[in-house]
Amino acid sequence: MAMELPEDSVGIIEPQKIYIEEPLTLRSGKILPAYDIVYETYGNLNADKSNGLLVCHALSGDHHAAGYHSREEKKPGWWDTCIGPGKAIDTNLYFVVCMNNLGGCGGTTGPATINPETGNYWGPDFPVVTVRDWVNSQSVLMDKLGITKWAAVVGGSLGGMQVLRWAISYPEKLAHAICIAAAPKLSAQNIAFNEVARQSITTDPNFHDGYYLEHNTYPKQGLTLARMVGHITYLSDNAMRAKFGKTVADFENEGGNFGRDLRSGKLSFGFNVDFQVESYLHYQGERFSANFDANTYLLMTKALDYFDPSIDYGGDLSKAFVNSKCKFLLISFTTDWRFPPERSREIVNDLLKAGRKVTYLEINADQGHDAFLMPIPRYISSFKAYLRKVYQEICDAP
Amino acid sequence: MAMELPEDSVGIIEPQKIYIEEPLTLRSGKILPAYDIVYETYGNLNADKSNGLLVCHALSGDHHAAGYHSREEKKPGWWDTCIGPGKAIDTNLYFVVCMNNLGGCGGTTGPATINPETGNYWGPDFPVVTVRDWVNSQSVLMDKLGITKWAAVVGGSLGGMQVLRWAISYPEKLAHAICIAAAPKLSAQNIAFNEVARQSITTDPNFHDGYYLEHNTYPKQGLTLARMVGHITYLSDNAMRAKFGKTVADFENEGGNFGRDLRSGKLSFGFNVDFQVESYLHYQGERFSANFDANTYLLMTKALDYFDPSIDYGGDLSKAFVNSKCKFLLISFTTDWRFPPERSREIVNDLLKAGRKVTYLEINADQGHDAFLMPIPRYISSFKAYLRKVYQEICDAP
Repeated sequence: MAMELPEDSVGIIEPQKIYIEEPLTLRSGKILPAYDIVYETYGNLNADKSNGLLVCHALSGDHHAAGYHSREEKKPGWWDTCIGPGKAIDTNLYFVVCMNNLGGCGGTTGPATINPETGNYWGPDFPVVTVRDWVNSQSVLMDKLGITKWAAVVGGSLGGMQVLRWAISYPEKLAHAICIAAAPKLSAQNIAFNEVARQSITTDPNFHDGYYLEHNTYPKQGLTLARMVGHITYLSDNAMRAKFGKTVADFENEGGNFGRDLRSGKLSFGFNVDFQVESYLHYQGERFSANFDANTYLLMTKALDYFDPSIDYGGDLSKAFVNSKCKFLLISFTTDWRFPPERSREIVNDLLKAGRKVTYLEINADQGHDAFLMPIPRYISSFKAYLRKVYQEICDAP
Repeated sequence: MAMELPEDSVGIIEPQKIYIEEPLTLRSGKILPAYDIVYETYGNLNADKSNGLLVCHALSGDHHAAGYHSREEKKPGWWDTCIGPGKAIDTNLYFVVCMNNLGGCGGTTGPATINPETGNYWGPDFPVVTVRDWVNSQSVLMDKLGITKWAAVVGGSLGGMQVLRWAISYPEKLAHAICIAAAPKLSAQNIAFNEVARQSITTDPNFHDGYYLEHNTYPKQGLTLARMVGHITYLSDNAMRAKFGKTVADFENEGGNFGRDLRSGKLSFGFNVDFQVESYLHYQGERFSANFDANTYLLMTKALDYFDPSIDYGGDLSKAFVNSKCKFLLISFTTDWRFPPERSREIVNDLLKAGRKVTYLEINADQGHDAFLMPIPRYISSFKAYLRKVYQEICDAP
């Protein structure tokens, strides 16, 4: 059944593809001779091309950030909550661009595309890419679109890391950096969870050293498991209690079942799934593994692990920001234990130390790391107000 | 090289085995017709048998809580930090008993022992056991040892849950319940991590539906992965930063590398291990998988998931404690995010509501859940002082 699209949707969107013939030298030293970029845009670029806004996606995201590919599509793009006419990222004001990152599995050149030099899938031979490589390729796309300065570059989680890299690498090419639920670099615990995910994928017998597409298979179990682990880290303990417990309990309240709702009303005394939370994780993991490329998952987690813009500055992140010119908005969420508010405050402190202009918002939210994708009133309204002010700056510009 | 034993060690210990011919009805309704219990004891039982102290082990523990099995053994028992002459659990004062729980893999009847009815390994046919079943079998061992009342029952983590069950099921048979780093029941997040561990084991192609011993193999990869996930949850974020970062950084301090020490000094730009924390997790996981039975791991995690003594009391834990008679000592650790202090405080509140006598200690410690195994001065000295007072009560008894 074709559905009626919501009034504040960007509507039916067709992804675009551009072939980049100029080689890209990666941080690893390897060179990508040419590549495709798949991207979407929402809203219209104004005459002086000053209202461009780049959205950077996170680990499992892609170019499909808002709207629908067809009336049959069940769910809109991953950040539809925030992108659309009248929404926080208002497509009546901005020309929004979101590209699938290099190494991704949404159509941009990556492990699941064909390597023209061999005629086979890139697979595990696709080079390890970093946040810096992504930002460099986003800058190439920017040039192709004829945009010389983004009104804002925006992203959450791994997307927020790209925002920071933009501010450092291309100080002249953005006016505002909006970095949400991110960290200046991963902690040992973050890396450890990523390694568990990678390990679960690479030890799956269907992984075939990464050449699973040639074997007409894919590491379903391993990718499912990787996503299950990931999913736990995206949700807060409280969010899980609320989601899987008929009685919402918080630490102070007595009673409540702490998210222990049973699947069938009683314990199985066996190794089947007993609790709702287990079924949910299985469902999430399996749905994900059917739609995502395992080699891309490996690449994305490595990009996360490697991200550390302070590395060129003797470990002092504030020095990385000395030449930045944009203004910054940082947003964090109280129950995010993957990248807690403390990590955003580190960035804020280093920005202030570097003399940058920073707005910092810490949002009370129960949803954990996933909060950045949720319609949390204070978050959305502040985000929207900030971007209205940015638009006013564009209009007031001489 | 045979080594000199430390002076405060219980020395060379020989595990004991007792065959229990009386059937045990499990909570699942199944009946274990007979079973072996493997246990160790340290110190001497006094004439009136009033100085018995039961130690309950956690997920990966066993009966070998203190001392050495030989002079060649590299590491002493798992709680040697706390058990020995002059230590917190002072073997000059107490007769300490620790048994390998049913379903374990330390010699007590479990999946890796032979089912006499079939002549094969129990394997996956070993019944699902619960904390209550363990406590019932510990009570059987107690009777065989001629002890009518424990001076104290003591345990950390899953061991602490057995302590709570003792206080509820056998109010007359213990004077003190010492419950460390535990929770009244798992949260959805705790269960989720356990399910990831189980999933990683059961999807290993060498699992063979649990009949891996018949196939002369074992699910090494799956068990390694399960332990890697578990290990992350035992350590605090801070503990990992300290362990794997040459510069110890806390949230407030600038600088520090957040546990990002590299293994070889530079990034590999490949999928080999880059960071020390990754090697460490691999090492821990592999060492564990070589020495632990996968079916036992599954059973232990289910016992954790199922533990909820409030279930017989309409979800009100305080009612479970109404008939308890012992005094309680609860201890928690500030950076334990598996079972944080909040979870111990829930127990404390329910004990107080039930009119029980409770001492509660919250220890500042960086080590996360694993802190209960560590020589943290305030923890050890308070624990020791408490048990000296308990011993004085024994001496003063009429």
